[in-house]
Amino acid sequence: MLHEDRLFPADADTRSVARRLFTEVEKLPLICPHGHTEPLWFSKNENFADPAQLLIVPDHYVLRMLVSQGISLESLGVPDHTGSAKQTDGRAIWRLFAENYYLFRGTPSRLWFDYTLEFLFGVTEPLSAQNADSVYDTISSCLAEQSFKPRALFDRFNIEVLSTTDACTDDLAAHKAIRESDWQGRVVPTYRPDAAIDPDHPDLLSNIEKMGALTNEDVSTWQGYLNAHRERRAYFKSMGATATDHGHPSARTADFSPAECEALYAKVLAGDTDAAEKELFRAQMLTEMAGMSVEDGLVMQLHPGSVRNHNQSIFETFGRDKGFDIPKAVNFVDALHPLLNKYGMDKRLSLILFTLDETTYSRELAPLAGVYPSLKLGPAWWFHDSPAGMMRYREMMTETAGFYNTAGFNDDTRAFPSIPARHDVARRIDCAFLAKQVTEHLLAEEEAHEIAVDLTYRLAKQAYKL
Amino acid sequence: MLHEDRLFPADADTRSVARRLFTEVEKLPLICPHGHTEPLWFSKNENFADPAQLLIVPDHYVLRMLVSQGISLESLGVPDHTGSAKQTDGRAIWRLFAENYYLFRGTPSRLWFDYTLEFLFGVTEPLSAQNADSVYDTISSCLAEQSFKPRALFDRFNIEVLSTTDACTDDLAAHKAIRESDWQGRVVPTYRPDAAIDPDHPDLLSNIEKMGALTNEDVSTWQGYLNAHRERRAYFKSMGATATDHGHPSARTADFSPAECEALYAKVLAGDTDAAEKELFRAQMLTEMAGMSVEDGLVMQLHPGSVRNHNQSIFETFGRDKGFDIPKAVNFVDALHPLLNKYGMDKRLSLILFTLDETTYSRELAPLAGVYPSLKLGPAWWFHDSPAGMMRYREMMTETAGFYNTAGFNDDTRAFPSIPARHDVARRIDCAFLAKQVTEHLLAEEEAHEIAVDLTYRLAKQAYKL
Amino acid sequence: MLHEDRLFPADADTRSVARRLFTEVEKLPLICPHGHTEPLWFSKNENFADPAQLLIVPDHYVLRMLVSQGISLESLGVPDHTGSAKQTDGRAIWRLFAENYYLFRGTPSRLWFDYTLEFLFGVTEPLSAQNADSVYDTISSCLAEQSFKPRALFDRFNIEVLSTTDACTDDLAAHKAIRESDWQGRVVPTYRPDAAIDPDHPDLLSNIEKMGALTNEDVSTWQGYLNAHRERRAYFKSMGATATDHGHPSARTADFSPAECEALYAKVLAGDTDAAEKELFRAQMLTEMAGMSVEDGLVMQLHPGSVRNHNQSIFETFGRDKGFDIPKAVNFVDALHPLLNKYGMDKRLSLILFTLDETTYSRELAPLAGVYPSLKLGPAWWFHDSPAGMMRYREMMTETAGFYNTAGFNDDTRAFPSIPARHDVARRIDCAFLAKQVTEHLLAEEEAHEIAVDLTYRLAKQAYKL
Repeated sequence: MLHEDRLFPADADTRSVARRLFTEVEKLPLICPHGHTEPLWFSKNENFADPAQLLIVPDHYVLRMLVSQGISLESLGVPDHTGSAKQTDGRAIWRLFAENYYLFRGTPSRLWFDYTLEFLFGVTEPLSAQNADSVYDTISSCLAEQSFKPRALFDRFNIEVLSTTDACTDDLAAHKAIRESDWQGRVVPTYRPDAAIDPDHPDLLSNIEKMGALTNEDVSTWQGYLNAHRERRAYFKSMGATATDHGHPSARTADFSPAECEALYAKVLAGDTDAAEKELFRAQMLTEMAGMSVEDGLVMQLHPGSVRNHNQSIFETFGRDKGFDIPKAVNFVDALHPLLNKYGMDKRLSLILFTLDETTYSRELAPLAGVYPSLKLGPAWWFHDSPAGMMRYREMMTETAGFYNTAGFNDDTRAFPSIPARHDVARRIDCAFLAKQVTEHLLAEEEAHEIAVDLTYRLAKQAYKL
Repeated sequence: MLHEDRLFPADADTRSVARRLFTEVEKLPLICPHGHTEPLWFSKNENFADPAQLLIVPDHYVLRMLVSQGISLESLGVPDHTGSAKQTDGRAIWRLFAENYYLFRGTPSRLWFDYTLEFLFGVTEPLSAQNADSVYDTISSCLAEQSFKPRALFDRFNIEVLSTTDACTDDLAAHKAIRESDWQGRVVPTYRPDAAIDPDHPDLLSNIEKMGALTNEDVSTWQGYLNAHRERRAYFKSMGATATDHGHPSARTADFSPAECEALYAKVLAGDTDAAEKELFRAQMLTEMAGMSVEDGLVMQLHPGSVRNHNQSIFETFGRDKGFDIPKAVNFVDALHPLLNKYGMDKRLSLILFTLDETTYSRELAPLAGVYPSLKLGPAWWFHDSPAGMMRYREMMTETAGFYNTAGFNDDTRAFPSIPARHDVARRIDCAFLAKQVTEHLLAEEEAHEIAVDLTYRLAKQAYKL
Repeated sequence: MLHEDRLFPADADTRSVARRLFTEVEKLPLICPHGHTEPLWFSKNENFADPAQLLIVPDHYVLRMLVSQGISLESLGVPDHTGSAKQTDGRAIWRLFAENYYLFRGTPSRLWFDYTLEFLFGVTEPLSAQNADSVYDTISSCLAEQSFKPRALFDRFNIEVLSTTDACTDDLAAHKAIRESDWQGRVVPTYRPDAAIDPDHPDLLSNIEKMGALTNEDVSTWQGYLNAHRERRAYFKSMGATATDHGHPSARTADFSPAECEALYAKVLAGDTDAAEKELFRAQMLTEMAGMSVEDGLVMQLHPGSVRNHNQSIFETFGRDKGFDIPKAVNFVDALHPLLNKYGMDKRLSLILFTLDETTYSRELAPLAGVYPSLKLGPAWWFHDSPAGMMRYREMMTETAGFYNTAGFNDDTRAFPSIPARHDVARRIDCAFLAKQVTEHLLAEEEAHEIAVDLTYRLAKQAYKL
């Protein structure tokens, strides 16, 4: 089903170079420094449930495409916010997906899915309404096997290290269990404090309270609140974390005086902030987090610019992460100014920037990361984690930022089985990009081989201190 | 003059695939769901006037390029706002155009023009100052023939259906005459209410009055005004219309309470609105139109983001549509929020979005259309209705929206003779895009054949319910 | 080291066409209508200093990349704002650069540097830590030769004319000396009045005073201030200048009444302007400069949209032009409206627009320059003066603006030895772009040959009246 030259340029010379480069990196271990897999999978190591529950229901890429063509989330077995699902028959969900599989032509979901079907489950013919049932049966029987338990897959996927994303109030029990087990797989947490920072989060106050309870800090004061973060970061670090992650509506940062911060925090606690003050609090907290990264060495990731839960009725019925997050124009150059004036030249800070607004690639991000020692460029993100998206990323970033201000690839997925597929696409596109540079005589081929390994393996390890 | 492989990729393998795909779609009938041809041409069926009046004077692409190089609109025979033209000698206009034909190198106008010269008028050598007169004579004598009358051309072009764009106050007499004639050509109207909605339109009040007169509704009230639209839409529908079209400065929508709408409408009628209120009224009316589309099934087209009549002196002297409309950055994600919260999940709504701001392709439009069942993506529009423009459209839309959330091609032209040329370019570029996907093993060739037919024919028919 | 086919497309047919086109333009004289070389080099004609001082220390592209990887400006010999440098050992600076030369992979700096090493200094193996010293010695001994004096290089580079950029208060003594020398090289000044216009400039008032002193105008009045500009422009023109240049934070223009201008100017002189008024003064002055260009025929260049000196501590320690200028989103369509309404249709005005915001290429700049006779498009600027940057420029500009509304290439460099390298890249990319148009049958090859010469030579001469 999958051609060995997929994603390589059609031109014969360029394709030959791409092949040679790919041979070099194809088998390298996977570094997975950012994603949304569940640590519980690896601590419990239980077999995954039926194919639809593993591959369809939690995949917001798949859901959104089907919804866009008039298929309801109910019919796809998506539970409502109470956890109750109208469609619980995995086979029926799978059939609906298979009938509509043609919708994914031209999308990365198709690539990931075909790869997973072929290389994980041994399915060699394209999924269709006709073979939906037999493919479902094949996957079902695979999933029941020992060799398809999470740890076995982790090992089979050749994952060297995998970072999960964890609420800052999480006790990391699953991570603890993994560390204490006899399994050697390296799974580490990432400190994600949004829900204890964002005044727009419905549970902010209870999360702050939880931070206080976990650290014995007086979170009713600004300093106590900051100390609580410091201690939780230290705990995460002790459990293997090397990074924090921040998902904000914008990239806005701020640098207020302690007195101003105290006053703003008091308003946040009192629930007495307007939209502008909420934004300022988030902005200030990004700078505080950067300061703590200077102290404790945790790498900082910033994922801004997604308008979450764009449709009110879907949000009310089904909750978050159902495919209704839409990117928005982002300004980094002004937004990061306060943070960069304070910590931008400090080599102890490592801030990895992501964007959904590709116009910022050549206009803002490459120029910023191409001069500030604290900045690195995260890979093409989300909608742009795709062949053409990755190619645009390299084409628009490289000339100003070079290769060595980028942070390698991360798969950023909730869909564990798709991890190898995603790395496969990234490696192929990087080889295709480099091959073009070789045939156009911008790089010597031996340089390209070295860069290919850097992009695939070394840069991610370095950037995330893994 | 025109090479049979024009617009196909240079790589030999990819070109072979493109050729095979093109063979499949080259002869398919033309679906023309959106454009600006005159229904009178087809009701009267009179021979067209001289070559310059047909091909130069009304073509704003041609005018703007010549003006940019210092040639005056006067010398090109463009009438001023009173209808009086300084240059009325078609041959002189034609010579001026021919002398400057080199200016169009690299532009789609050149492609369209060469195609029209060769395939419509049998001219086989490139237009130049030297052959200007003989080409003029050739075209003139063609235009005088029976076989060059509008209906004959419509049939020769293999047009299956053509939608015009008509003011909501139009009596559709020409459409009526076409329907009552013995000619079988299918020409349908489109409901364009801007001039009866936009508070910035100089004739708004008289157009609203006309709406009242045509429908016997009391347009001094908000409900009467809405009813007048409802009735006019019904009339258009009875005359074959399947769609409405809305050209707004922005994509802003709103969802006010009936009381707020009444108050705003009263201010509009009183001519007592500031710029912000004018924008809000247009915004509210988009949502109202979407609601009526849910009721009556008319497909809704939105063409936002053009700053019309950028130069004041040209506008005062010559009026609209003289090449001085300039695109501007557009925000869809916030702008459409009110409308999409109200009707976005309703499958009865079909809203086709266009943009002149290509940054919105991958950032906003593909993510929106890739999840909302009510949204479809119109083809690359106006300045981007060009080979590279269309290629960027596919490259930036497909990975997130797929092929099946796009609405096929429309020619959007005032230049009737160029219709086949425009479809030819679109079909070739789509085949070139698909061929690259085949040679890079993202699609099987047989899938690409199916998609090529979808993009050329099926999707436009479906999206516009034609 | 440099392949003769570098930057040409890999496809064999396209590459052949590119080669043939390049043969046509490779040896054409260099037109250098905009840049930042020092006229003193050519008036004094002294040998350049050591390699590091010539090639590393003043090159902000080189500095920024090294800084981004944690190398300090101090260690690169960059003097602080008092002029004192911590590292003065050229060889040490050079070694540091050579060790980190791999960072420039994929960047235009690498291309320019390799070209300069090979074609100017005869170095034929890639720069590395290993050969750093021997390459340094080679360059050093070259630089000491007669044939490496500035005038000799100017002649060897085949420069037909070179424009410098000079403060409006400059006495142009170096230019005078060049004109009065027996050397035939044509070096002309450009009128750059920013420091006597921008209320954010720290020396604005003393510069205005200087303008008064130089012209005997009463610069305490608005009319006197304008007259001082008129007279200085005339002086520059008498010294060979054909153009002015304006580096503004935005492209904003204004058209206030004389009374409003007087009041605003009075506030500027009193140092009593807020940020908005500063912006308005700059905006008004762009329109005034356009008006003077209509009078005196000087071509006007606008370089907007760079956020200068983004990092406060670097600026305070090292001053301007150290690589910390970051582009920002720009709006041309509204910003230029006042100026274009006043002078846009006047053929006596020639306004050349530059941008760092590539989103404006197809959205605003090509549509504007494709209709206004006063507008031309400057080449891809700064970060986009690179192979992929130039290719995007042609791909996004050409279909709407054509080739003949562009102003050819300029090297815009402070690095004199890199001038031939920069023209080499531009010529190759234009040939590559045109070759693709030929193999895709959009242009006949003989047309492409003519266009190649236009883009390389004729258009720059015409646009800048050189």
